[in-house]
Amino acid sequence: MTQTATRPATDDPIDDPIDAPVREQGRTGLGDALTAALDGAYHGLRQQVRDSLTADDLLRDPSMSMAEARAWVKESLMALAARGWGNAGYPVDGKATDVEAGVVSFEALAHGDLSLTIKGGVQFGLFGGAIEGLGTEQQVREWLPDIIATRHLGCFAMTELGHGSDVHSLETTLTYDPETDEIVVHSPTPTATKAYIGNAAEHGRSAATFGQLWVDGVLHGVHCVLVPIRDDAGADLPGVTTADHGHKGGLLGVDNGMITFDQVRVPRTNLLAKFGLIDADGRYVSAIDSESRRFFTMLGTLVRGRVCVGAAAGIAGRRALSIATRYALQRRQFPVPGGEGEVLLLDYASHQRRLFPWIARAYALGFAHNDLIRLLVECRSPSVTEARRRELESRAAGLKVAETRFANDVCQVAREACGGAGYMAENQLTLLRNDVDIFATFEGDNTVLQQLVAKGLLLGYREGWTGLDRRETFVKTADLVGRMVVELTYARTITDRLVAAARRQSGEASILDRSWHALMFVEREKHVLESLAARLQAAAKASDRFAAVNALQDHMIYAAHVHTDRIVLESFIGGIEAVSDPEAKRVLNKLCDLYAVSTLCDDRGWFLEHGRMSAARSKSLVTTVDRLCADLRPHALAVVEGLGIPSHLLGAQMIAPQE
Amino acid sequence: MTQTATRPATDDPIDDPIDAPVREQGRTGLGDALTAALDGAYHGLRQQVRDSLTADDLLRDPSMSMAEARAWVKESLMALAARGWGNAGYPVDGKATDVEAGVVSFEALAHGDLSLTIKGGVQFGLFGGAIEGLGTEQQVREWLPDIIATRHLGCFAMTELGHGSDVHSLETTLTYDPETDEIVVHSPTPTATKAYIGNAAEHGRSAATFGQLWVDGVLHGVHCVLVPIRDDAGADLPGVTTADHGHKGGLLGVDNGMITFDQVRVPRTNLLAKFGLIDADGRYVSAIDSESRRFFTMLGTLVRGRVCVGAAAGIAGRRALSIATRYALQRRQFPVPGGEGEVLLLDYASHQRRLFPWIARAYALGFAHNDLIRLLVECRSPSVTEARRRELESRAAGLKVAETRFANDVCQVAREACGGAGYMAENQLTLLRNDVDIFATFEGDNTVLQQLVAKGLLLGYREGWTGLDRRETFVKTADLVGRMVVELTYARTITDRLVAAARRQSGEASILDRSWHALMFVEREKHVLESLAARLQAAAKASDRFAAVNALQDHMIYAAHVHTDRIVLESFIGGIEAVSDPEAKRVLNKLCDLYAVSTLCDDRGWFLEHGRMSAARSKSLVTTVDRLCADLRPHALAVVEGLGIPSHLLGAQMIAPQE
Repeated sequence: MTQTATRPATDDPIDDPIDAPVREQGRTGLGDALTAALDGAYHGLRQQVRDSLTADDLLRDPSMSMAEARAWVKESLMALAARGWGNAGYPVDGKATDVEAGVVSFEALAHGDLSLTIKGGVQFGLFGGAIEGLGTEQQVREWLPDIIATRHLGCFAMTELGHGSDVHSLETTLTYDPETDEIVVHSPTPTATKAYIGNAAEHGRSAATFGQLWVDGVLHGVHCVLVPIRDDAGADLPGVTTADHGHKGGLLGVDNGMITFDQVRVPRTNLLAKFGLIDADGRYVSAIDSESRRFFTMLGTLVRGRVCVGAAAGIAGRRALSIATRYALQRRQFPVPGGEGEVLLLDYASHQRRLFPWIARAYALGFAHNDLIRLLVECRSPSVTEARRRELESRAAGLKVAETRFANDVCQVAREACGGAGYMAENQLTLLRNDVDIFATFEGDNTVLQQLVAKGLLLGYREGWTGLDRRETFVKTADLVGRMVVELTYARTITDRLVAAARRQSGEASILDRSWHALMFVEREKHVLESLAARLQAAAKASDRFAAVNALQDHMIYAAHVHTDRIVLESFIGGIEAVSDPEAKRVLNKLCDLYAVSTLCDDRGWFLEHGRMSAARSKSLVTTVDRLCADLRPHALAVVEGLGIPSHLLGAQMIAPQE
Repeated sequence: MTQTATRPATDDPIDDPIDAPVREQGRTGLGDALTAALDGAYHGLRQQVRDSLTADDLLRDPSMSMAEARAWVKESLMALAARGWGNAGYPVDGKATDVEAGVVSFEALAHGDLSLTIKGGVQFGLFGGAIEGLGTEQQVREWLPDIIATRHLGCFAMTELGHGSDVHSLETTLTYDPETDEIVVHSPTPTATKAYIGNAAEHGRSAATFGQLWVDGVLHGVHCVLVPIRDDAGADLPGVTTADHGHKGGLLGVDNGMITFDQVRVPRTNLLAKFGLIDADGRYVSAIDSESRRFFTMLGTLVRGRVCVGAAAGIAGRRALSIATRYALQRRQFPVPGGEGEVLLLDYASHQRRLFPWIARAYALGFAHNDLIRLLVECRSPSVTEARRRELESRAAGLKVAETRFANDVCQVAREACGGAGYMAENQLTLLRNDVDIFATFEGDNTVLQQLVAKGLLLGYREGWTGLDRRETFVKTADLVGRMVVELTYARTITDRLVAAARRQSGEASILDRSWHALMFVEREKHVLESLAARLQAAAKASDRFAAVNALQDHMIYAAHVHTDRIVLESFIGGIEAVSDPEAKRVLNKLCDLYAVSTLCDDRGWFLEHGRMSAARSKSLVTTVDRLCADLRPHALAVVEGLGIPSHLLGAQMIAPQE
């Protein structure tokens, strides 16, 4: 039972060290180098936060009941806050806001129980983030410290039962009453009920509540007001009715609930007033004239939530891959043909094919996420251009979609790759899958986000663009005479160079030629966007405009998809250029090849249809994926170590240290 | 909020009745006709069992704890048994075995909580099935009645911790001791532990235990023996150690557990002796000489389990689709452009595209399943040929893969299509998704099964073929000089006629030409199988045979996939031919078009690579899918009614009857 089967021969082998047994011992040097490369500029920070987290901090018993899970998560969050986790990313004690620290702290929590991650995200990111992003300096000074310390748990009450993705249409009203100098918060219809709100079912004491602001009979659009909802004993305050969503498909430790308001009065000064306020004379004042621009500015400050959710999804996916790959490095199945013992699961070509392209994708998304954080930080500067800020929103949306799709798919792939053992809750994979599911929906439904990304790529259409709203897609798209632009990004120069090289080449490029990969990704995006723009122009002239634009939905979704693919490839290439360790660089280049080739392979129908690829080239994509998987096989352990999930946080019983 | 958006115009509309509101009222006539068509020959039987089941019988509160769920499931199963559900499919009181009734009863249970379905499957199908399929007439007479009545709950103890898919390598030993005329059941190693066994954690009193039979120092291969494991108080019997798997990714109401045996003694007559027995003189006797053939004969009798699991997965997928589609028929989102009110979710093209191709696939699989049941029944006859019996095993395996993959994918699609509401447990989708997950693994891991299906298609290789074992793939495949045959099946004549018509045609066929669809499906299968056979021949000469065969794994999986696609299309076409209602027939033809075109569309890379399709034709597949979705939109309600899930069994709170 101990013999390793002969590995498939390849014509492009890289060194073949014997896999170290999977146990709690020192990581491989290559694993460390890969982690450093994937962490990039944030390696020190990430290493520090990872090292500070133990299994006791982050992992919960998957068999807990909902009530137990909620209690455990609340307690664990408070314990983390006591150690200063809530501060990360906020300007406390006069220090400047450290965005990287905030984002990296959040993603670090995703190494463990995702209920804890999301509860933290609700409290520090959304609730605290609303105060910090929409409140005045005084409001931030007054309210934020208690939030950071978890002395004051709260909700981010935006979504309504009738309006999830369509924030512009929120029904909740915030009406200023000059008689009492108060704001009256009200849910006028059943569909105005705030729904799916984290912390609303049990633990929240207040809610940052979004609604339509009315002052002196004039509607000023969506604003946010801080509304106390429960007393210290946990009872609903007068006029407030909360309800518990109860069991969900996952995230059992987060107490999601509903809130309705019946003429609830709060002081005028509870309006978060950074972008618009009611002055002492009862007049509405804002530095931003256009209601629409004010709306987008307010929502724009919340882009960080989307960045964080994408990162957490990426980490969750890496954890699932780490568990499944390590299991396949210890599980043996079926006798070795013509030999003794049984074959190691990961030595089956079909098993490599099942896992390795996903591992390559995990790396690709990781590098892309590093670039996204850099852009997020850059956009905190007051001097940043509007175009750059929009690019941030577009990238955050596109990458959030890619990362959450990745996480959903890969958790299922990992579960199935571990067979019956993968189905046991103690092995973490089903818990991960259940928790990560909703990431595809919250912080922007993926289908809606993709349409926004596509819109954002069309020049002249950017004016009305927002990260949270798609009504414009249907209301305005048909008016548009679209002119497509390809985004200009910092990584772009690398791609330009590669694409230029590919174009100069005579004869067919090698299938592993990076410049050919870049050319294919860029040409596909260009063609898809240009044809989308042309179709949008035609749609503008159609008599039934809804039908005309409706017919373009899938084209828009596809455009966002291929755009993000290109962005991700650029980041991967750029990330590798910064790596100095030669062995790590060699393995990363293999992984980048695998990402590029498997992405092209998955969409080879498009390339063939559009004459970008010969049939022979297309067929060889499939065999090249197999070959790359075989090449990477000897490095499997190092490659999953490189994903950066500490073995003490895997939590899967089936890969507990061997005796 | 009430205006319906203008529907997209199409150039091939079918009638456009106004959708009836989704509520507890009479079904549409078209819905009834579609259900009758999809039920096929089993309509009466299916209607009868569906009508006899209430929500109280089948639906459990999704927020139950594991302990509550187990208790509810046990109680519910006993209540069903008291109403005679356990009898279905068994020869009781001298009546002949009614296979259809057994299979249809099982699939009917899948309209509700899948833990109950699987608990029923374990008790009546696997445990009872082992007794009935492997026991002598006397054993059946003695043991079956108590099993059917749930007076005697038991386990099907085949899988071991170290051996899931590789049944041939089971380690548990069954050793005859002539001194005491007993069989000694023993787990010699930790990996011999029986694992993931339903009823083993709590409720089982006995286990039909598979292991290697030794008589007088001679090994006779895998046999099954009935072993009591618990006393009436529920305590483990001496020598037996059971353990509880605890929380799983789903099926919380099934008490899966582990069993180890330490020299446990049972009477000689507890050996299930239909195919091999130990006589009173302590000699092993079997009518089947070859150990290998005996093994396959024994496993072959268990094919019904695979048929049942596939059916249950299909029903679960239909339930998810019914919920998501009905939700999209009531949920409105974003304002109607240039109009009033908001757009119905199902009027968005991207939403139709998300759901309708899956609905078409649900129908396709349903028709294919009807043909599978027919074949199963046919194979009960003693006069059936060996070839036919192997075809049953191959079809059952291929369809089980297709149906369980369908169920897994569609439950996730449905969840996401319902956004946040889809994530609430009370809306059933996450429960369905969690429960159906493991269907891809149990009763044969899908990846393993696909390789078996491919093997079974190669003439001359059939000798060693089995429905449960893939060791042969590696041990023997390389010895094979493969000659490919395309399966001859009863539905085949229809396809032959269509393919011949397509070949006669001059000029390009219409993209909706059924004969062109058939031609594409058949040609793809033929090419893939022929090239597989050629590659297997080459592999037989390779020096590193493991590597050579390993490199073919994905080709084999793909071959099984395209073979099953063709089988399913044939059944769909054959099923429609039997329908007389003209309206139902017209809608079914649309659905069949959508199944065929979207299947071709998904794999258009292959058709382009192999010169079977022009680029223009390939591109038009995409637009044709959209057009077919738009055509089907007006019939959405009838089409989901046709899937046959009674509205009282949907159980989703969000589509409770409207006031």
